[in-house]
Amino acid sequence: MIADIKKRALHRARILEGQLRGVEKMIENEDYCVDILTQSLAIQKSLGSLNKLLVENHLRTHVAEQFEAGGDDRERAVDELLKVFELSNNRG
Amino acid sequence: MIADIKKRALHRARILEGQLRGVEKMIENEDYCVDILTQSLAIQKSLGSLNKLLVENHLRTHVAEQFEAGGDDRERAVDELLKVFELSNNRG
Amino acid sequence: MIADIKKRALHRARILEGQLRGVEKMIENEDYCVDILTQSLAIQKSLGSLNKLLVENHLRTHVAEQFEAGGDDRERAVDELLKVFELSNNRG
Amino acid sequence: MIADIKKRALHRARILEGQLRGVEKMIENEDYCVDILTQSLAIQKSLGSLNKLLVENHLRTHVAEQFEAGGDDRERAVDELLKVFELSNNRG
Repeated sequence: MIADIKKRALHRARILEGQLRGVEKMIENEDYCVDILTQSLAIQKSLGSLNKLLVENHLRTHVAEQFEAGGDDRERAVDELLKVFELSNNRG
Repeated sequence: MIADIKKRALHRARILEGQLRGVEKMIENEDYCVDILTQSLAIQKSLGSLNKLLVENHLRTHVAEQFEAGGDDRERAVDELLKVFELSNNRG
Repeated sequence: MIADIKKRALHRARILEGQLRGVEKMIENEDYCVDILTQSLAIQKSLGSLNKLLVENHLRTHVAEQFEAGGDDRERAVDELLKVFELSNNRG
Repeated sequence: MIADIKKRALHRARILEGQLRGVEKMIENEDYCVDILTQSLAIQKSLGSLNKLLVENHLRTHVAEQFEAGGDDRERAVDELLKVFELSNNRG
């Protein structure tokens, strides 16, 4: 993993944990639903930024190698990227 | 808050915390990016289910009251629901 | 349907048709994929605004009536709103 | 553009145009909002499938070449893919 991306991804994951604990506390306290939802939707957005970092790392490392190797490795790279793109569009 | 929804929402929030700690560990271990992304996207989807519970609770409690009160209260309810709908479509 | 919302929704639907014909032409011309995707993603976003208008109309008309009627009508209103919220989060 | 993908993308774009004209007619007729919304959300999902086809074509053609060329070309490829990923997560 690229050192700078790893550092930023871990930082972001820890912030997310804190935000999630915040939402848990808001539910326990029975805060106003719209306030809890606003927080929860902010976490979903924040996860989107984490995912973008992970996609960037993937493109700059594994995908670069898989495309260089060509053949089955490249096929696998394309399939996995399409799977990630598809999953990122379905957040039930 | 409706007791059954509160219980399910808290249960879900705690599962989400565990999943998020899992992602953090995967980043620390430098697992394969696509595996980390798959986990992270599963969390986004799981947050979607939590949000749906919170929207359900909101509709059955506050919104019901706000619509009954009418006037400014109903206006506020409509504005807030539209804001939640909009935010849920923007997860940058 | 609220007259002003209907007018704006129709206006938006017609713009969307034009944008979609544009994407079709770009595919026929084999334009650069990223340019086609940027257009296509703009259409998805534009559809989001149309949906928001429709949700607003729904809340201000049918939902107001269904909540006033109470009982099964209100149940139906809640179920339908949750269905719309869920579908709007799954755009495979 | 890969011939088979082009054919499928055009087919899908034409279906989308028909669906969009359907939504326009439903708004004109003042159909039930939830029915219009269900159609409109189906179009958003259908656009997601078109986008996936375009991403697939892009990865198999331009990105493969850009990664092979390396240097600035590869940088541009990574930046564009991240931009597409980001836009696809923001559908206001």
